[in-house]
Amino acid sequence: MSFSHQTLGQQVHFGVGNLTRDVRSEVTRHQAQQILLIASGSAVAAADELHATLRIAHRIDGARQHVPVEDVESACDAATQVQADLILCVGGGSAIGLGKAVALKTRAPIIAVPTTYAGSEATNVWGVTEAGAKATGTDDVVLPAGVVYDAELVRDLPDELASASGMNALAHCIDSLWGPRADPLNALLAGEAMGALRRGMSPLAAGPGRPGNPGGSGNSGGSAGPGTSGAADSPGAELQARQQLQYGAYLAATAFASAGSGLHHKICHMLGGSFGLPHAQTHAVLLPHVLAFNLPQAPAAGERIAQALDAADALTGLERLRTQIGAPRALRDHGLKEADLDRAAGLILEVVPASNPRKMTSTDAAELIRAAFSGADASALERPVRHLEGSRSP
Amino acid sequence: MSFSHQTLGQQVHFGVGNLTRDVRSEVTRHQAQQILLIASGSAVAAADELHATLRIAHRIDGARQHVPVEDVESACDAATQVQADLILCVGGGSAIGLGKAVALKTRAPIIAVPTTYAGSEATNVWGVTEAGAKATGTDDVVLPAGVVYDAELVRDLPDELASASGMNALAHCIDSLWGPRADPLNALLAGEAMGALRRGMSPLAAGPGRPGNPGGSGNSGGSAGPGTSGAADSPGAELQARQQLQYGAYLAATAFASAGSGLHHKICHMLGGSFGLPHAQTHAVLLPHVLAFNLPQAPAAGERIAQALDAADALTGLERLRTQIGAPRALRDHGLKEADLDRAAGLILEVVPASNPRKMTSTDAAELIRAAFSGADASALERPVRHLEGSRSP
Repeated sequence: MSFSHQTLGQQVHFGVGNLTRDVRSEVTRHQAQQILLIASGSAVAAADELHATLRIAHRIDGARQHVPVEDVESACDAATQVQADLILCVGGGSAIGLGKAVALKTRAPIIAVPTTYAGSEATNVWGVTEAGAKATGTDDVVLPAGVVYDAELVRDLPDELASASGMNALAHCIDSLWGPRADPLNALLAGEAMGALRRGMSPLAAGPGRPGNPGGSGNSGGSAGPGTSGAADSPGAELQARQQLQYGAYLAATAFASAGSGLHHKICHMLGGSFGLPHAQTHAVLLPHVLAFNLPQAPAAGERIAQALDAADALTGLERLRTQIGAPRALRDHGLKEADLDRAAGLILEVVPASNPRKMTSTDAAELIRAAFSGADASALERPVRHLEGSRSP
Repeated sequence: MSFSHQTLGQQVHFGVGNLTRDVRSEVTRHQAQQILLIASGSAVAAADELHATLRIAHRIDGARQHVPVEDVESACDAATQVQADLILCVGGGSAIGLGKAVALKTRAPIIAVPTTYAGSEATNVWGVTEAGAKATGTDDVVLPAGVVYDAELVRDLPDELASASGMNALAHCIDSLWGPRADPLNALLAGEAMGALRRGMSPLAAGPGRPGNPGGSGNSGGSAGPGTSGAADSPGAELQARQQLQYGAYLAATAFASAGSGLHHKICHMLGGSFGLPHAQTHAVLLPHVLAFNLPQAPAAGERIAQALDAADALTGLERLRTQIGAPRALRDHGLKEADLDRAAGLILEVVPASNPRKMTSTDAAELIRAAFSGADASALERPVRHLEGSRSP
């Protein structure tokens, strides 16, 4: 057991309906006088609620995706003008991303109020887009000092989005079990996260009134809009599920940020970049195939996944969750062409991390991408490994 | 689920024989030029090893217990004189405690190299003794920025000390499950810690050559001195066990620092202060009685302890470990008098935290202290609770 682990220091609040109280406690803790409020377009209501009770020196609404450099410049100008000593970000990756870029220049601390499951609030990674290219970096000054999770803020997110986010967070967990800086602490956090994600995603499976969904939010399947669904008669269970998703997504982000990108994320990013495949669907399709491929050489990871997903084995647990939420099954339905398969297999081989528990041959890569393309049963990839040289078991 | 959790940011290294490499990486990370080295008397060899390869601006040896204020003053003078930009502490609570007191004044970061299982390296708590009274406080500037655990440094600690430290760390874990700031993250860390402590303590049970101790360090029971024991033929297993103790003690300290003192520590500190009972023995005797008392109202805690200790139930798991290491059983053997019992019971009632899962009556307190006094079976305290009002189940 030899490893180095970086724990990022944060004060994290979880609650239901505690938004104002918890944000106020963070403002007090930082003795902030001049607050810069940054909100994404979808978080106006939450930002208004905070604006009503806090003295805000300057407010920026409608933070845009990918943190455009011109937005950073005008936000930094505003921060300097009001001498901002705290950056309060309300929203998803866009608002938090803009806040991080401002913190990078002004060194002011960030309080993040996430309204999605994106996870940016738990990392020290920043990114700014200029002339179509995104510069990224790591700096502890952009790590939010405080994070306030209020399940009320994610209650009205559509089930589809919750499902996709849950699967994305699950991918963070699974990949963190064999990422380049995988260690026992990351595995511990990932295991806890997977259990919470399972509890948070299971109610998303069935629509309102259907068996197995006594308290699901019920606005999936186009059956009803937010707030009008069959779940209205059990708001407690719905909020509990949403809170499990928040808790799971938070822990997944900490584990993944610490362990680094493993095989799954390397392949997904390559497929997105080289073939323009959509992010969420690519993740959802690829995950069982990458898991099945690595499992023979990663028994401890498999055991942890199976236990967290409450299943006899890891792949069964993942497939059950995927079936419940109706996850996409085949990359051919999402833009990949059969003519691309050979090239994709070659590119996969190039991105396999040195730390991956199982070595990959060109045959393996071809089989993996074809299975993902056609939506074949992933378990075919999970066969005993013939040559064990050069491989390690995490 | 409503809680606030503070995660303390640290870079933590675990390894065997990696002392110099890992400390150098921390020195580089901090771009330190002027290192103040503080070592406790028992850590001279480790300090020498570091001194041989690092440029040290000033060195202080023989850090004393309880951090006397005159030692703090002379250390601060030295730090100011050499303009120390890094404090490197090698040793147990004494060296790290003195380093923390210097950091409090100079704001220089600390790198800690623990040579015991005390856990001070994982907390932001400092303490300084002046005129017989210890002032304590909390400040993030005293939290070591980096911690380097090298199992080689604890290999030669006597088994008795390892056993007592392991039991002390186990008490941290169990009390953190119902401390005033107990939360799911503390419970997760405590559960992982208890599993590691069990793995690290089990080999301490049997002497060299005895069944069940193929790789134990074997210097318990007065059979052999350090380094001459039967474990010499399997140094790998011995080091692995020591490393599990380091890992467990570290996580126990993080969980306990975050959750705060629960019933167990409140009672132990009171008994130590009011009756002069010895620290380690008081902890070891009290723990099963406090656990048995709280269990009926803390089923989730009981389940987590049982699972981590690999036992059918929490109390069985704890008693097995206690028997293995020959833990003390009765406070009457360690200074408590029968005439003290009434007064002790009264004082116990005064220190029960409001957050304790089970309310305590004066009869309960009298039964608990009498059982601990006489070494009675703890399970007698674990009976169904008649009145559930006002109690909560964590």
